[in-house]
This record gives sequence, structure tokens and C-alpha cells, in this order.
Amino acid sequence: MVREAEALRHRTGGLDVRLVAAADLDAGRLAPLKELGVDVSASAETLIQRDDIDVIIELIGGIEPACTFVQRALRAGKSVVTANKALLATAGRDIFAAAKEGRSAVGFGASVCGGIPVLLAMRTGLVANEISSLMGIVNGTCNYILTRMTREGADYDHSLDEAQARGYAEADPTLDVEGHDSAHKLAILATLAFRAPASLDAIPCEGISRLEGVDVAYAREMGYVVKLLAIGKRTDRGAELRVNPTLLPGDHPLASVSDVYNAVEVNGHAVGTVMFYGRGAGRMPTASTVVADLVEVARGAAPRGDGQLSFWADAEPLPLLPAGDGRMRFYVRFNVKDEHGVLGRIASILGEHKVSIASVIQKEPGAAHGKANESVHVVMLSHEARESDFKAALLEIDACDFITQPSSFLRIEGH
Amino acid sequence: MVREAEALRHRTGGLDVRLVAAADLDAGRLAPLKELGVDVSASAETLIQRDDIDVIIELIGGIEPACTFVQRALRAGKSVVTANKALLATAGRDIFAAAKEGRSAVGFGASVCGGIPVLLAMRTGLVANEISSLMGIVNGTCNYILTRMTREGADYDHSLDEAQARGYAEADPTLDVEGHDSAHKLAILATLAFRAPASLDAIPCEGISRLEGVDVAYAREMGYVVKLLAIGKRTDRGAELRVNPTLLPGDHPLASVSDVYNAVEVNGHAVGTVMFYGRGAGRMPTASTVVADLVEVARGAAPRGDGQLSFWADAEPLPLLPAGDGRMRFYVRFNVKDEHGVLGRIASILGEHKVSIASVIQKEPGAAHGKANESVHVVMLSHEARESDFKAALLEIDACDFITQPSSFLRIEGH
Repeated sequence: MVREAEALRHRTGGLDVRLVAAADLDAGRLAPLKELGVDVSASAETLIQRDDIDVIIELIGGIEPACTFVQRALRAGKSVVTANKALLATAGRDIFAAAKEGRSAVGFGASVCGGIPVLLAMRTGLVANEISSLMGIVNGTCNYILTRMTREGADYDHSLDEAQARGYAEADPTLDVEGHDSAHKLAILATLAFRAPASLDAIPCEGISRLEGVDVAYAREMGYVVKLLAIGKRTDRGAELRVNPTLLPGDHPLASVSDVYNAVEVNGHAVGTVMFYGRGAGRMPTASTVVADLVEVARGAAPRGDGQLSFWADAEPLPLLPAGDGRMRFYVRFNVKDEHGVLGRIASILGEHKVSIASVIQKEPGAAHGKANESVHVVMLSHEARESDFKAALLEIDACDFITQPSSFLRIEGH
Repeated sequence: MVREAEALRHRTGGLDVRLVAAADLDAGRLAPLKELGVDVSASAETLIQRDDIDVIIELIGGIEPACTFVQRALRAGKSVVTANKALLATAGRDIFAAAKEGRSAVGFGASVCGGIPVLLAMRTGLVANEISSLMGIVNGTCNYILTRMTREGADYDHSLDEAQARGYAEADPTLDVEGHDSAHKLAILATLAFRAPASLDAIPCEGISRLEGVDVAYAREMGYVVKLLAIGKRTDRGAELRVNPTLLPGDHPLASVSDVYNAVEVNGHAVGTVMFYGRGAGRMPTASTVVADLVEVARGAAPRGDGQLSFWADAEPLPLLPAGDGRMRFYVRFNVKDEHGVLGRIASILGEHKVSIASVIQKEPGAAHGKANESVHVVMLSHEARESDFKAALLEIDACDFITQPSSFLRIEGH
């Protein structure tokens, strides 16, 4: 720690950041700090009341009691650095209201994508830009699982087991694989990008736990990879925000982001497309950004609650595009009886709903996947269509007598 | 301009940046600004002398008179924003000495990779890291040419013509294709990464103008792409800096950076690998970063000459690894007579120089490239070897009687 502090002083041109006190309900965990002369306590409140403390780093996690402590610290004029994405995504408005009142700063760079300085870039390096859209692989667990499914043709359950064995997935992986973690990060990214508080509850969120290996394989055959994407787009009628497994063309910059790596692509009116890539989680990458935030706060360079980000407390919530109104391309696999005329009937129902077909392949799944089956797979890529039109067409097709199992679909981005 | 200023005020939380005066020897170019109420003049000196000007944006380009004006402005306490990479790379020490004296700030984010906030990240977002290495595609002209050579098998001259026709290459492309532009950017990147002024003159620099299509094709066959890379590595015995066409594995994140796009990979001890991708040139991407710098200076968040970057004026030059001491893998194509025993003699000379072979292919170039030829190509990839050892082996081999033309080699990175 002493060596790191010295190195940091050197790299910042002499900034002297000292750890003076730490609080943890489990005092035993603080023993190594106590030996270094840091005041330790079981009460976070003691940190808030000390006059010689300028910045508090919140490492509690979760909403409460972190939320109460953070607000109290901010109101008391102490700046707070936190990597707590759940806190920002659900209680950002209260946090920034407190920061505004206390004229204090909130450093939250590590709350999205750990070591990747993407929030920093959106606040500062890209400040000249109106952001039109962003698209990110923001969950390493899902990206690891999808990489295994794509490269090795493994199924979801097997890939999840492997991720757990390597420590890349929790014992209960729900928060990651169902997309909730990605939605938290999207809420924060979208709030910064579109400069209005994005409501977490309003983000349609679909994970990867129901993704079938066969669809990953067909996508690959057609030149695409499947990624869990957090997507935010500015439209004339509100922002379109969603988290879902998505097909990306194989030559898209995000397509080659593999294993536990994260990346976020941002489109600005001046800069065009920029992308930020790196480790989105882990102790050291997260610490890298927490320290960067601390330095920014210490320099007085972090935006205070009454500054650049005050809109988080004040502004109306980000207006959203009504559900189903988004326009996009779709991948769809129909499971149909091997009968004459089926393709024509599917095409005609799609056409009635203004969905046109860009390409189609028909497969005998028995032959391709080692088991006999009386049904065949008809796999289609659509041109751009309205989401609600596409879903209405799907409902109608799935009710037809030639369908053997409900169809499965995925969205396509990146063209 | 008024609309942009209003949007910027909104995005910065109320920062009021006003363009009050502009100077250009060609007064006619300033007519549109004059109409907007901006004071115009033919003398840059008038800007420096005005008390109501806090920041000057240098858009002159080249070394002189820009260098004199910038230093004078900095000494007068005015901060300067510039995208002038030649200025920073060749006169950085003088610039920062002036900034130190005037306690003024230098914003130079757009001097490397235009719209990509990589310098910002190295100064701020990655400040907790000791940077061990960096590697970048920092010249869009070369990357466009190399992308054409790789994808279409086009030769260098044809690809350059195409780049010129599209406006991606200058009429005299020397600065770009010979790697000098990349070396300028590397000098700046390395200075920030390794916190000591890197001398431009000491950077070995090789461009792409002598690169042959056949080597790009062989590289591709072996799973590699050829990119012009600016490379900086910290070693125990000094920094290794160089610009050269380099083989990268096809699945390396930089390998998929195509056309005029730039990207820089940075490795830090805490964060691991991060990569920044985007447009490295062009009016609007560059303007995006110039405005970001301006905002940083206006907020007082830009490092002043007496702050984080004061080492640029004070520190000893970055110690460099002696030439030839670097260790790396090599690609080499020998042009040899189609005789018995040649492969053995090559392998034995390489072995005597401690260069071991990782893989080899032998090709009849006549068959592969549509013309009969009595010589054949022996293409090898080496294991890691000392550069001077490899070059000594090459000299000895090229002097052998079985060699029909001098051999050509490229370095390999990314394993």
C-alpha cells in the first residue's frame, strides 16, 4: 500500500491521498489496515462525522445500508467514490439530490465495466458530442458463456458449469444470466448518454438462459455471433433501451470481444463511432477505476452534485420509445412439419405484417444434430421491421397447424 | 456555432465557453466568424496580449511559427489547446517548460488518434496503473492501405492510389506511409505512459511502402494480419519503442481494426489490457477532442505545466533499450533456389544465432502468383529471439549462394 501510494503520488504530479480511517462491521477484516496506522471502526457514521476526511469510498455493496450512508456523507459535504451499480441505477436520483445539497462529488466510474474508462469518456472526452446510440457487452459472465457456445458449440448448461468452475459465474448466476446486471449498467450509461435519468424498471431485459445452442450455430453459419447486448438509442419519439441476446455480424468490432472481456461502442455526432474495451470486473480492474475516481475527486476535477450531473436529481425521467415501437432486423427459427407450401405460408403471414425476408435457410435438424426428427428448421433473417409487427406475425405463425414447436427469435444489430 | 455552444453549455452543466477572437494571416477565412461578432485579426500576438482571453486554440500546424506562439501564450499564463502532434513530439520539453513558467495548462488530447480519448485515459482513467506496454494502429492512411492489401490481395501501389482517390492519403503520402506520423504519436504516447520525455529521433521507424503483397498473403495464410504498429514496452533495461509493419494473430483485438480506424491497446498492472478504438483523423473527430480539451481547461481540470505533466520539462529523457536488444518473434521469407538441402542450411544458420523455427511453409511462387520462377519461397515464423541475433543470421543467410533475392522479414506481436 505504501509503495502504491508513492507511485500514485509520482504519477499524479504530487497529489497526496491518504487513507486515514476505515469502517467494517467485521473488525477482524480491518486488522491489516490497523497495523498500517489506519483508524478502524465498526461504524460508518464515524467516518462521516470526522472533519479531516474529504472523500469516502463505499465498498458495502447493495442498496441498504449503503444508500443511507452515501446520502448522509454527501449531504455532509464529503465526496463519495463508489463502484455500486445497483445503487446508482436504482437510487441515482436520491444520491445526486444529496450531492447537490452538500455540493459534493460522486465518483462512480467503476460502476460500469470495471476497469474500462467509458463513463469518464462520456462525461469528459466525448463531452462535445450528442450521443445518438450506444451498445455494449457489459457482463463478463454472459460473454464467457456465449464465447464457449459459439466457439465449441457447447450448450448453455454446460457453458454455465464451466464458467462457474472457473469462478466467472456465481453459484446463483441469476443476476448475470438474466440480464439484470446489464440492465443496471445500461441505466447508468443511458442516463449519462442522453442526459436524463433512465428508469431501471422501464428497461426490457432478456437474458441468455433460454438461448439454444442450435440458434447460436445457425447464426454462426450465417456469419453472425450472438452477444448479450445492452442497447441505447436516441430516437425522435424517445429513447429505445433494451438488454437482449443479439446477432452481430462477424466483422463488427464488438463481435471479436471474447471471454470475460467487456466493450462499449458509443456513437457521437462529431466523433463518429468509438469503442472502449477491457476487463469489466475483477478486484484489480475495479480498483484501478476507483483510484482514478479518487484522484479526480481529490483534484477537484470530478463533477459535483451541483454541476454537470445535477440533472440526475432534477431532470424529468428519460422519455422512452413505447414498447414494440423499435425498428430492427430479426433472426427467427421456425420448427415446422416437413410439408409442401409451409415456406410460402410463413412468408405470406410475415408479409401481411410488413415483415420482409432478407435470407432463409431450411435445415433437417435430425441430420444436423444427430437425432431423427419429423420436423425441420426454417431459419430466416428479416429486413428491418417494427418489433410489434414482427411479434404479431410470430403469434399468428405459431398458431398454424404446420408448427411443431414455438418459434424462437433474436434481434440483429450492427448493420 | 451558436447551437453547438448552447448544447455544450447544457452538457457541461452550465459552462460558458465563448469564442471572442480569432487570428489568421488570411483574413478572408475569418469572415464567417466576423459576422458572428468574433474579433478577427491577422496577428496571433494580439490574442496573447488580450486580458479577456483565457485559452488559445492553436490550429496553425507544423513547428514554426506555432511553437513560438504557443510558448509565448503559455508564458503569459494563457492555456493552450492544440492537436499539433509534431509540435508536442519535437518540442514538448520547451512547451511544458513554458507552461510551467506560466502555470498554464496544455490540452493536447487531439494530437494522438483524433477523436479517441486515449491520452485522456492515460492521464486520468488509468492513473492508478503502471503501464507496462502499449501498441497502437495510429495512422488511418496506412491502415486503409493495409486493409485493402489484406482483404483484396491488392499490392501497395494500387492500394495507395485507392486511398488517394478517396481522400485518405495526401498527394505526397511520405509522412504517413513511412511511419513518421506514427512515430510522432508514439513519442507522445510513450512520454505519458512511461513518464519521461521520449525522443522522437530515437524511435526506429519503418513504414509500409516496401511491404510486398506476397508477404501480406502468406501472413494471412498462416492466420495473421499485417498492421503498421506503434509499439512501446517497458523493460528492465529501458523502454523499447518502434514503429513497423507487424504480424498480429487474426483473433487479436487490434487485428479487426480496419479501414481508416485507429485503436490503441494499453496494458496496466491493475487494469490489465484495455483498448480504445475510433476515428484517428478528420475534421469532426479532431474537433470533438479539441472541444473536450477546452472544457477540461475551462473547468480547471486540465493538468497545468507545474502539475502532473511537469516531468515533460524536467525529467531526464526516457532511457531506451539499446537497438537490437529487443526480443520478439519474426516472420521471414527467403527467396531460394529450388535445391536439395537449402532448408537444412537455413535452419542451421538460424540455430547458430539462437533463432529457433516455430513453423515453416515452402511455396512455388510461380504457381501461386501466376508466373514461372526458378526460385521458391521458404516462409518461416520464428520463436522469440533477440533482434540483433536474428538480423545477424539473416545477413549470413542472404550471403549464401542458394539465395536468389534478399530475404524480407516482419516482426510478430500479440502472443
